[in-house]
Amino acid sequence: MASNVSITPWEAEAFVDYDKLIKVFGTKPLTDEDLKLVESIVGEVHFMLRRKVFYSHRDFDEFLRRYARGERVALYTGRGPSSHTHLGHILPWIFTKWLQDKLGLELFFQLTDDEKFWHEHRYKLEETNSMAYENALDIIALGFDPKKTHLIIDSEDIRYLYPIAIRVARKITVSTNKAVFGFTDSTNIGMMFYPSLQIAVCFLPSELYGEPTMVLIPAGIDQDPYWRIARDIAPSLGYPKPAQIHNKLLPGLGVGGKMSSSKPETAIYTVDDIETAKRKIMKAYTGGQPTAELQRKLGGNPDSCPVFKMMEMLLVEDDAFVRKHYERCRSGQILCGECKTIVAELVAKFLEEHKRRREQARDLLPRFLLRNKFDPPPIKR
Amino acid sequence: MASNVSITPWEAEAFVDYDKLIKVFGTKPLTDEDLKLVESIVGEVHFMLRRKVFYSHRDFDEFLRRYARGERVALYTGRGPSSHTHLGHILPWIFTKWLQDKLGLELFFQLTDDEKFWHEHRYKLEETNSMAYENALDIIALGFDPKKTHLIIDSEDIRYLYPIAIRVARKITVSTNKAVFGFTDSTNIGMMFYPSLQIAVCFLPSELYGEPTMVLIPAGIDQDPYWRIARDIAPSLGYPKPAQIHNKLLPGLGVGGKMSSSKPETAIYTVDDIETAKRKIMKAYTGGQPTAELQRKLGGNPDSCPVFKMMEMLLVEDDAFVRKHYERCRSGQILCGECKTIVAELVAKFLEEHKRRREQARDLLPRFLLRNKFDPPPIKR
Repeated sequence: MASNVSITPWEAEAFVDYDKLIKVFGTKPLTDEDLKLVESIVGEVHFMLRRKVFYSHRDFDEFLRRYARGERVALYTGRGPSSHTHLGHILPWIFTKWLQDKLGLELFFQLTDDEKFWHEHRYKLEETNSMAYENALDIIALGFDPKKTHLIIDSEDIRYLYPIAIRVARKITVSTNKAVFGFTDSTNIGMMFYPSLQIAVCFLPSELYGEPTMVLIPAGIDQDPYWRIARDIAPSLGYPKPAQIHNKLLPGLGVGGKMSSSKPETAIYTVDDIETAKRKIMKAYTGGQPTAELQRKLGGNPDSCPVFKMMEMLLVEDDAFVRKHYERCRSGQILCGECKTIVAELVAKFLEEHKRRREQARDLLPRFLLRNKFDPPPIKR
Repeated sequence: MASNVSITPWEAEAFVDYDKLIKVFGTKPLTDEDLKLVESIVGEVHFMLRRKVFYSHRDFDEFLRRYARGERVALYTGRGPSSHTHLGHILPWIFTKWLQDKLGLELFFQLTDDEKFWHEHRYKLEETNSMAYENALDIIALGFDPKKTHLIIDSEDIRYLYPIAIRVARKITVSTNKAVFGFTDSTNIGMMFYPSLQIAVCFLPSELYGEPTMVLIPAGIDQDPYWRIARDIAPSLGYPKPAQIHNKLLPGLGVGGKMSSSKPETAIYTVDDIETAKRKIMKAYTGGQPTAELQRKLGGNPDSCPVFKMMEMLLVEDDAFVRKHYERCRSGQILCGECKTIVAELVAKFLEEHKRRREQARDLLPRFLLRNKFDPPPIKR
């Protein structure tokens, strides 16, 4: 699919040519005009939009216009619960929460314990299922509205997805899945069926509310193959095409690559204790020069530095602060050690608050479960 | 798979060489020794066993021995609800009910409205789902014990199957499905996933009762591909292998072929009115000679006559009656018209009673639905 760019739902880089990705995936770059539309409708522009952390979309503008016209719309995102939550996961959720807060939207959040079990044979189902509940605590800790946020755990909430997934699955052949996802004849039939479940959530709000409800999906572009199929088949099933907005992937703290559970030393988990998190930051690869002398002389490279990116993409809303920090790095006025100390403190502050709220989340969980709030969609239509 | 014999879950003949099928499928012929085992445990032998209407099996003897040792066992069969029920469908259900009555066994009955929707694109899901409920009335009308008979309608009861199907699906590749079912890359991903749902029911009783529970599946041998996979993967999932007992297919009333909804004029439906059913019998193809004169001289061929087979395989329990009728036909003492009149009356009698009970079944239905009696199986084990 993505000729020279390795971007699939199971493999994605962080420092990539995002303009090229837009071309390869055939999405639209987020333009200044789009941001003006956001400003006119929302009243402000989130820093992740200003900084093009979200950089690409499909029908984000149409989604906003539908909202502005008073049509029903909803948010949808998800998580494959293969590990504890790290900061790379949280990035799009923070933006999603902002959209919920500003526009008063309902959010459907899918936790795909089935897919992770199918994809990674080392896990038992009870492990990916337990991890779904762990991840749920992080979602709740971010402050989503329990009345408007609906968690779906695939293995247990299948009856909400299946009546839709049955109709979706008849529209997708093995050939399509091979072409879109790179599946082969050695792929297990769970993985082969799975796209129908991730796509089903695009259409679930329309079924639950009994009226056409366009969803906007904030997520990495690595998930785009699902939405391409979803958009292809939506009209024939009588649903609006789902809109997407794509975020850049938060870099890991090592050399290159996204923050990933496959390299735990380069990822900051919400369950890391504060000292561990700080230590990971202090040991991080940076865009700095080999010596302090050279750094003062040549300056650092914040654009390829995961420590700076953590500040810019995730932790600091204040543009002036970030710009000043960027310039001090570029001009050699700040060394990596100092910078790391600043970011380590920012991370510590974030984690302390998050951990406190994460503990409270256990009691709030039942209020977030879809199954406690809705009846399954009907078979008859 | 079945080199020269066309037997798949979607295509099966009636007048075939059953000895050859046993070889091709690698099953065991039902022997006189097996029937002695039945007699010793059940206390009697059903006429469908005596007449080898059930002719082949896998581990039927082991199933009986487990029962005799006091181990928990259960029955499982099913129906793809693509049409109203005809007498060919009912044949194995009558035998299944006998087993339930004699051994006091619980029966899990799967109605696969999802699979029929995936397989036959002319249907809407609400149509196959509605037909599942129509078929359910026929099952109930046969007199199964509501306390011990549990109907599963896939699209609505998926949460009972899915926790098991997830584990089953990881064990099956696309390659396996292609080899076993003849699927191709053009197959939709619903059909591709479906075997994990039909197989899941083999293991559902073990999950619901919390102890290893071998199931016996009375059904046509065309369903055997599912059970071969089920038996392959059962040990690695910690379940007993399912046992099967295979019935011959009731011939349709035309020239060759099983009774099939694809040829409605050659099938007797439970919803046919009595006069329509009688007319279909009177118009049936038979094993008779071209003229009454030749028939009296040469005799008929009851072995290849669908009218005689309906009496022998389904309608008449009395061996002496059937044997006498067979001999009168072979010796030309009875003409096809007379024989048809007798069988038409037998069919009418059966249908009258069935229709009466089928109407009462509507009120009984809730007592048969699995969802009204059990909680879904746990994710954790």
